Amino acid sequence: MGEAGATALLVGVGPELEWLTGYAAHGNERLNLLVIPAAAEPVYISPRLEAPAALAAAGLADGRVRIEAWEETDDPFLHVPSHLPPQAPLRLLVSDGLRAAFVLGLQAVLPGASWGLASSVLGPLRRVKDGDEIALLRAAAHAADRAMERIVRGPLVGRTEVAVARDVRDTLVDEGHDTAEFAIVASGPNSASPHHEPSDRVIGPGEPLLLDIGGRRAGYSSDITRTVWIEAEAGRGPEAAFRTIYELTAAGQAAARAAVRPGVAFEALDAAAREVIAAGGFGERFIHRLGHGIGLEVHEEPYAVAGNSEPAVAGNTFSCEPGIYLEGRYGVRIEDIVLCTEDGGESLNEAPRELRVVSGR
Amino acid sequence: MGEAGATALLVGVGPELEWLTGYAAHGNERLNLLVIPAAAEPVYISPRLEAPAALAAAGLADGRVRIEAWEETDDPFLHVPSHLPPQAPLRLLVSDGLRAAFVLGLQAVLPGASWGLASSVLGPLRRVKDGDEIALLRAAAHAADRAMERIVRGPLVGRTEVAVARDVRDTLVDEGHDTAEFAIVASGPNSASPHHEPSDRVIGPGEPLLLDIGGRRAGYSSDITRTVWIEAEAGRGPEAAFRTIYELTAAGQAAARAAVRPGVAFEALDAAAREVIAAGGFGERFIHRLGHGIGLEVHEEPYAVAGNSEPAVAGNTFSCEPGIYLEGRYGVRIEDIVLCTEDGGESLNEAPRELRVVSGR
Repeated sequence: MGEAGATALLVGVGPELEWLTGYAAHGNERLNLLVIPAAAEPVYISPRLEAPAALAAAGLADGRVRIEAWEETDDPFLHVPSHLPPQAPLRLLVSDGLRAAFVLGLQAVLPGASWGLASSVLGPLRRVKDGDEIALLRAAAHAADRAMERIVRGPLVGRTEVAVARDVRDTLVDEGHDTAEFAIVASGPNSASPHHEPSDRVIGPGEPLLLDIGGRRAGYSSDITRTVWIEAEAGRGPEAAFRTIYELTAAGQAAARAAVRPGVAFEALDAAAREVIAAGGFGERFIHRLGHGIGLEVHEEPYAVAGNSEPAVAGNTFSCEPGIYLEGRYGVRIEDIVLCTEDGGESLNEAPRELRVVSGR
Repeated sequence: MGEAGATALLVGVGPELEWLTGYAAHGNERLNLLVIPAAAEPVYISPRLEAPAALAAAGLADGRVRIEAWEETDDPFLHVPSHLPPQAPLRLLVSDGLRAAFVLGLQAVLPGASWGLASSVLGPLRRVKDGDEIALLRAAAHAADRAMERIVRGPLVGRTEVAVARDVRDTLVDEGHDTAEFAIVASGPNSASPHHEPSDRVIGPGEPLLLDIGGRRAGYSSDITRTVWIEAEAGRGPEAAFRTIYELTAAGQAAARAAVRPGVAFEALDAAAREVIAAGGFGERFIHRLGHGIGLEVHEEPYAVAGNSEPAVAGNTFSCEPGIYLEGRYGVRIEDIVLCTEDGGESLNEAPRELRVVSGR
């Protein structure tokens, strides 16, 4: 905070709060705010009805953080300024996901302050996972691997994407997640839309199915993508054009994973996959970055994207997920969560990556 | 917008976007922003990889809203100012849940603007539900009623709150919700914490169990609370002290429901319940407002809280949920979703409200 020139961090409900205190509160319209001044003790501002829940969190229960409860008819923002130094200039860093209603409410009671994001201080700490966090991410990844395997072996043909997405959510929980968080089920031409919402389209034979699924287990996230081909008839594989883009995507993904090591720039990982895919003639169809960090959030720092020259360090965990999308026809994406170790990259996911032809029946 | 002096609404992913366009996007770190200028056509700013998903939404598919896609390496905030009038002063209203990272990013590229919340314009529109919305809220309420009935009839004693909460989530979906959203399972003394997080406490006989559960069905939310007494032995009901606070809570809740009619102030509904509970000697233990509006959000306007003098109108839907909390001992809360009709209040929930003694076996 000293290096960032920050007077205080103002952390609302969300992953930063959970990381700092273990309190996985629900976000709602009532202000919850952990105030961490650079030069004073922290205080947690809580709605009175949620104060008992806050006090049950490990990092708030031990007395190091004072709980200050506000009543239903208080203006909660007026509880904040008294915990900040009386003299300007204030530099206040708010958690990235803080609701606009709270940001504007804070700005109204602290009109002279300058504002920034708490991730400038917390991001570099959160992105280096310790052994416990890596173990949790690994367990979540393996639960997702098992869920993926069950879904691709199960009945698919003749069912809607929505129905299969519901199966995915059930299976993610059944395999050990506490909650299912997302289930992209994109069949046929829908697989060309990277963030497709499951629809009432009926999955057919002789087409690809892209599954991008994940959940949370003990707070930590999983995220895996596989694209399978559903055979038109027994033993009949995909058409050559699909095989081409599949193999290129897989080769690009393998190149990026192989490039992971401490010191490599995240933009270089993106480039490692992109060069392979571009050399195959599909660079323009890889329309998104290589990947995102993962931890308490499904998407968090560091981002593997052109322009991000920061180096990987041991303990970083991030997705490696190139894709090729042919609009109106189909798409392919292959995604694993990769851990940067002192010895290079290690995939936490172990599900097979080679092209699979499934019966879907 | 004219009355509010707004130059434009800037609406990110969330319930306002869903209400305006039908697009139930996932919020993430990539900027999605519906820009609605007061004096020009709307434009939807989308990450390129999500543009196909946006175009699939009913309200964005018909050509009235132009989609402007930004590339992974663009600064997305630079796409916004060109859609606003070049002359100051700008008055920009952002959606209440917009992430701080986006609010600060927008403020950085529009330094001369003044900022407010889009709810000042959209709230009065969204809070009056039409017939389709009421039908969806009713169906969600009935699904929650059925889930509640199954849980209170099921095995409870000897199980942890966390295990029962998992059952609640499964049952909410099984009874027709698309997703389970929350499951407060608070046993014995934990029922005195209004927003208790399910714990590893084992539910026992001879104590209350408070269940506050809900999910989403076709976009709309359910939210119901019941507090039951688990018999210590067959046929043995609760101690007198519990019965007292239960009956008072139920009487207060009934008084509030009976007071609902067009024109009544929301603070008067809160007071109707509070007066009953205060007259019984427990006014200080009813530590939260009476309720909140419900629709695409579980908590949205209007709020039934002291100080809110706005009048109810036909089509408002909101929770009516007084509670009495005896710290360290136990608590009671009873909650229904109530619709204001021309003829008075109508509970969308139909689950029984009288004190229930269950075996928990």
